[in-house]
Amino acid sequence: MKDLCPDTVLGPYFSDGMRRVDYVLTYHIQKSGSTRRRSSRFGDNNFIQRLWRSLSTRSSRAPLQPKEDPEVAAQEHQTDYHEDDKRFKRDEFEENLRKTGLELEKDEEVYEVKQGSNVVEKIRMFIHKVTAPLHPKVNTSRSQCEKPLSSNSLIYIFVASDIFIDCSQLLYEQWASYSVFYKYQPIGLIRKYFGEKVGLYFAWLGVYTQMLIPAAIIGVIVFLYGCATVDDNIPSMEICDPRNNITMCPLCDQACSYWKLVTACGTARASHLFDNAATVFFSVFMALWAVLFMEHWKRRQMRLNYVWDLTGFGEEEEDHNRAEYEFRVMQKKLKQEHSGLMHLIFLCHHKDEFNLTGKTHLINSTSLAALHMSSHPVVRYNIRATVKTTAAIINLIIIIVLDEIYGAIARWLTRLEVPKTDKSFEERLIFKTFILKFVNAFTPIVYLAFFRGRLVGRPGNYLYVVGSYRMEECAHAGCLMELCIQLCITMLGKQLIQNNLFEIGIPKLKKMLRKRKSELDSIQEQVLHNTLKRYEKDQLLGPFVGLNPEYMEMIIQFGMVTLFVASFPLAPLFALLNNIIEIRLDAKKFVTELRRPIAAKAKDIGIWYNLLRGLSKVAVIVNAFVIAFTSDFIPRLVYQYMYSPDGTLHGFVNHTLSYFNVTDFDPGTEPLQPMHLGYKVSVCRYKDYRDPPWSSTKYELSKEFWAILAARLAFVIVFQNVVMLMSDFVDWLIPDIPKDISLQIHKEKILMVELFMKEEQGKRFAARDNQDNCTIPLSANQSPPQPRSRPVSQANCS
Amino acid sequence: MKDLCPDTVLGPYFSDGMRRVDYVLTYHIQKSGSTRRRSSRFGDNNFIQRLWRSLSTRSSRAPLQPKEDPEVAAQEHQTDYHEDDKRFKRDEFEENLRKTGLELEKDEEVYEVKQGSNVVEKIRMFIHKVTAPLHPKVNTSRSQCEKPLSSNSLIYIFVASDIFIDCSQLLYEQWASYSVFYKYQPIGLIRKYFGEKVGLYFAWLGVYTQMLIPAAIIGVIVFLYGCATVDDNIPSMEICDPRNNITMCPLCDQACSYWKLVTACGTARASHLFDNAATVFFSVFMALWAVLFMEHWKRRQMRLNYVWDLTGFGEEEEDHNRAEYEFRVMQKKLKQEHSGLMHLIFLCHHKDEFNLTGKTHLINSTSLAALHMSSHPVVRYNIRATVKTTAAIINLIIIIVLDEIYGAIARWLTRLEVPKTDKSFEERLIFKTFILKFVNAFTPIVYLAFFRGRLVGRPGNYLYVVGSYRMEECAHAGCLMELCIQLCITMLGKQLIQNNLFEIGIPKLKKMLRKRKSELDSIQEQVLHNTLKRYEKDQLLGPFVGLNPEYMEMIIQFGMVTLFVASFPLAPLFALLNNIIEIRLDAKKFVTELRRPIAAKAKDIGIWYNLLRGLSKVAVIVNAFVIAFTSDFIPRLVYQYMYSPDGTLHGFVNHTLSYFNVTDFDPGTEPLQPMHLGYKVSVCRYKDYRDPPWSSTKYELSKEFWAILAARLAFVIVFQNVVMLMSDFVDWLIPDIPKDISLQIHKEKILMVELFMKEEQGKRFAARDNQDNCTIPLSANQSPPQPRSRPVSQANCS
Repeated sequence: MKDLCPDTVLGPYFSDGMRRVDYVLTYHIQKSGSTRRRSSRFGDNNFIQRLWRSLSTRSSRAPLQPKEDPEVAAQEHQTDYHEDDKRFKRDEFEENLRKTGLELEKDEEVYEVKQGSNVVEKIRMFIHKVTAPLHPKVNTSRSQCEKPLSSNSLIYIFVASDIFIDCSQLLYEQWASYSVFYKYQPIGLIRKYFGEKVGLYFAWLGVYTQMLIPAAIIGVIVFLYGCATVDDNIPSMEICDPRNNITMCPLCDQACSYWKLVTACGTARASHLFDNAATVFFSVFMALWAVLFMEHWKRRQMRLNYVWDLTGFGEEEEDHNRAEYEFRVMQKKLKQEHSGLMHLIFLCHHKDEFNLTGKTHLINSTSLAALHMSSHPVVRYNIRATVKTTAAIINLIIIIVLDEIYGAIARWLTRLEVPKTDKSFEERLIFKTFILKFVNAFTPIVYLAFFRGRLVGRPGNYLYVVGSYRMEECAHAGCLMELCIQLCITMLGKQLIQNNLFEIGIPKLKKMLRKRKSELDSIQEQVLHNTLKRYEKDQLLGPFVGLNPEYMEMIIQFGMVTLFVASFPLAPLFALLNNIIEIRLDAKKFVTELRRPIAAKAKDIGIWYNLLRGLSKVAVIVNAFVIAFTSDFIPRLVYQYMYSPDGTLHGFVNHTLSYFNVTDFDPGTEPLQPMHLGYKVSVCRYKDYRDPPWSSTKYELSKEFWAILAARLAFVIVFQNVVMLMSDFVDWLIPDIPKDISLQIHKEKILMVELFMKEEQGKRFAARDNQDNCTIPLSANQSPPQPRSRPVSQANCS
Repeated sequence: MKDLCPDTVLGPYFSDGMRRVDYVLTYHIQKSGSTRRRSSRFGDNNFIQRLWRSLSTRSSRAPLQPKEDPEVAAQEHQTDYHEDDKRFKRDEFEENLRKTGLELEKDEEVYEVKQGSNVVEKIRMFIHKVTAPLHPKVNTSRSQCEKPLSSNSLIYIFVASDIFIDCSQLLYEQWASYSVFYKYQPIGLIRKYFGEKVGLYFAWLGVYTQMLIPAAIIGVIVFLYGCATVDDNIPSMEICDPRNNITMCPLCDQACSYWKLVTACGTARASHLFDNAATVFFSVFMALWAVLFMEHWKRRQMRLNYVWDLTGFGEEEEDHNRAEYEFRVMQKKLKQEHSGLMHLIFLCHHKDEFNLTGKTHLINSTSLAALHMSSHPVVRYNIRATVKTTAAIINLIIIIVLDEIYGAIARWLTRLEVPKTDKSFEERLIFKTFILKFVNAFTPIVYLAFFRGRLVGRPGNYLYVVGSYRMEECAHAGCLMELCIQLCITMLGKQLIQNNLFEIGIPKLKKMLRKRKSELDSIQEQVLHNTLKRYEKDQLLGPFVGLNPEYMEMIIQFGMVTLFVASFPLAPLFALLNNIIEIRLDAKKFVTELRRPIAAKAKDIGIWYNLLRGLSKVAVIVNAFVIAFTSDFIPRLVYQYMYSPDGTLHGFVNHTLSYFNVTDFDPGTEPLQPMHLGYKVSVCRYKDYRDPPWSSTKYELSKEFWAILAARLAFVIVFQNVVMLMSDFVDWLIPDIPKDISLQIHKEKILMVELFMKEEQGKRFAARDNQDNCTIPLSANQSPPQPRSRPVSQANCS
């Protein structure tokens, strides 16, 4: 390859100008340890693939295409009659490669044993026609693009021909463009270009986005139901009614004064949007949705495995020890104190984390307290919302910054652990990063949902932390509204900032820096742009850093969508909108911004599936607690059926408020402006279930408190068990392997066995004939007809 | 076979007296539909088995035997040097059979690639030596017994030779005898004699019994802990203290009078045995134990699958439609009203069931009420216990009778459903039978645990059902004691009665009836006994009715052991004792009482595994509820930490009793003998948390009630989630496939691939050589050395 001519434009030729270069093969020096293993693996693929090929040519099966999986089908129609010449040359080359032990993957045409009734077929064809505009237009003759870079990470094959440009161009047009956002992804093409691992990621993302559509629709309906019923909602009507002249106790010591409940009218009305009976239904729905999603993905994965011929691909084949591990094992005996240190570091880190969360909480509260000094009540309440929003934004920024730090910490910790294999290294890293990022993203939300406003104490006996700092309360309508704001800002903001800043901005910045480093001025660059070979230009792109950040982002989003969906039914909609952009953004990044990754084979999405499963299980209990404890759903129910005199919610607001005698204020904590409302207050109200001042057990938790607590807890038990039962039922109802695929696999197994049987029989005959043949060479044509499917196995001497 | 001579004693010979009969082949006429399917299946087995055989002969692997699975190992050492002659003959016969399309299963010798360090090996050897007396003595030359009856149900192969007697004799000695109860079962031999399905059942039963040992030990320790602490238990001390002169309200209207709490001393002390802190620990332990058991079984099953060469055996291969199904499908269009009828029947049946349970309850209570008329208090309390015990026994008898009825109903219902395949028929039948029998067995227990004593109302306002029948109360120490008695009697009685009556008595009875039917007097019988052939005698035995009754019995027992273990820590011990007998009893039955079943291949225990899994999940929540609601664990905790003045349980009994003013009795319900205790009672006490008569809200549920209810519910949530988390963790921690087996499978895969590669290569060379050979026949010996593992594939003409 030394006589390679760099000046030809249409593609690299050897210096004679006639022989064209098809592949540029660059490789690292192989480690002796891994060669042995590899050979056996190649052998495996070799045999199985040959088997499949012989099968697919033997059996008469119709294309799988019109069947309910348009993304997969996109890769099938690959007729390339006018490229026969090129193909022939390549085949020859590949044959040579194969002989030396390298097996390139073949494009298998997938056939199917014809089955199914006419009606079903017609319906399928109809659906296919209706969804036709949604399919990416890749089934042209152009789609014959090059093989993915070999899954064997030690050998890089750069394909340098005009077909390359075609293929990435095609991907760019039909996939990495915002204008095709409504279309299915050309998964087959993606897998061909990037390999199975990336293909699975985009397939997963596609399934997830697709599944979000019904969730988003139901979420919007639930939200609209909230909007429609806000005027009929008795509790918010009672709060907004100026005739209900309820005086509330001050929300902070000294600086704040008494206030009227009617000023909380706006918040009360707003919180009804997210706190109504439909929310309960919606969180049950979302728990089942999560199960359905997992099931749908399992089936999809199985189908892809089948179509991509991965059913025989074993997981354990990739397990070889990391060089670092072996190095460290040697060193380890010298450094036994390491593990102790690591533990210490981990503990420190965890402490650190909680401190940081505490800090955001402090920022939030102190700014709130400062702003509360303002005198006008309306301004004050607007300010309250503003402060909440500002605090949420500050929170968000801190979360994003910490996210990056935590990622680094997880990497560092995993490196300290020195896992044995590459796979276990990756899994441990992912698990740690996930835990850290998850805690980081959800701590403020969990705090808002379950702790804020719970531990405030009561007027006259507030709970003080750090000397004189009083725990903050929620507005009257509960913390649900604040939780909503936080979720909304986190979801929108995190996604916008991460998408724009981290996924577009930073790679561009890095690219610029890299260019500046190579110290070329723009004119030179222009010249280079025209003269550089494709593979030389690719060297200038950013390196591929793996799929983990992409998965992580999506999993955190999945957490937002499922975990707190009870308090924010619009979450699926936001996620859907984000994902529609995300797919194309990732596609653009993969096609244009990053170097083409080394194709990696993968059967499934690995540990991410387990994390998803874990999240969907945790979601059930979290939603149960959100409904039971954060929303007012249970107190309303209990009031309606236990305390209400007429079975309606009239009087509910009054029931939730306890009485406080202002003379019982601790000295120094009573408001500085007691006459702020224009009249003298003797008894103020606060939101809690406690005995009134005139009771014998004044200010103690009342019987109602315990009854409602019992009801809340009972709801959690019922909700959790019912939803878990339903989930298990759905899980059991939907088979993991699609019916047609399992049928297909079964039929192929039978075909394979028949083939083997015939071949065995044929061989036996052949052996007999052979003996005859050798002695009487003229009767060679009398051997029985044999299956010639396996070309190398024709051992008879005809 | 027409010239078979019936008079030879040592075994059947043909009439020439020389040629011996090895097999008596009887077969039904094959349906044309199933023949096609079968041939492909046989082909499959054929190929795979040949492959394995070639593998096992090629690779040099040491026997698996000394490795932690003595039961499996029992089948391995089968050296039969002096039986070569017999074997040779059989081999010849089998070869002929195989040629006609019938594949008999071969005894595969299982080897293993040598691995593992010296120390591990030594420990294994040590354990092997220590447990040596526990291994059944079957690894002698005698253990070469005949193949199981073919799994293909259309072909019966009766093996008639002296070896047969040897084998069943060996099983009888080493397995079906009570004297070897402490030994492992010879699973390999069982599988050889009865087939995989029966083998799996006994393997499962063995694992279950083995796992019960630690559970029984811990259970006994927990019980002993209860016994040891009974004297330090403050609540029972307070009850038994005669100075605590507490007068209780009467337990029934009019006939009963006031009573002193001190008379409940015995019950209180007894209930402490089962109601202490150790019980909570024990139910957590048992939940984890259930998970461990499932995991252990999965691993064991995997190992058996590997050793028995079932890894390639697919489930779907058995799916062919039932003839009944196809017949009914034709009929169905005429009888559309059938399904409606079925629904109706099902509903009726369910109603019926609850009525029956109600009846036992009625028996119980009315007899109690009648006996309560007796005047002396001590007699009365002894009577109370007697009545409870009698009631439990009556209950038990009803349960056993209903069990049989329900089994018939389930069969009938499933037949009405007309499932498509045999497998789905069996699964549906099992599921229905399970639900019915389970409900039948557990309704009284659930009633005792969760409903008895809950809905009694309060003095002066008792709840009456059916006009004037008052709901029954528990004794002071809760219903836990009664639950214990019920569980104890159900477990002991059901097992004793079912074992003795149903499993031994009824088959014997049937046998007798059959004999009487054949109208032979005893002398003739004696003569026949001496002259009849083995297979003719076998015809007189009872037919094999499947494993489902055996599994069902064990699953119900598993339910008893796991579901209510919180209230009866001795349950595992009882189950263990029963199972030790059960194994040998079943063994005896299978070997001597029943006809040898047609061997059925099975990869796993099927739906039973799912039922076990379901039970172990339900067990967590049931135990949580038993601890929270049936025992006094939570009220004690709440009293200790919320109400107790000194942080101890002193005063707890007083705290649990509410006050009742006797003037508030409804007219006509006050006791007829108010002066029964010798003094006038103005205020009596009852066990409930209600406000006292002098409160403004008299006799309403008090704050303590709600607080304790909340604590109970919180405990359920915490317990359920913690245990579930721990279970999932244990499940995740233990790999489903044992390390050595997965390593083995992986290595065999590599070996297989290498073999194929070499063979392919060999063939290519051979093909090349062949061409040379045929033209120059003298150079035949110059072909490269080839793998000769697959005997039929030697296609070169050397």
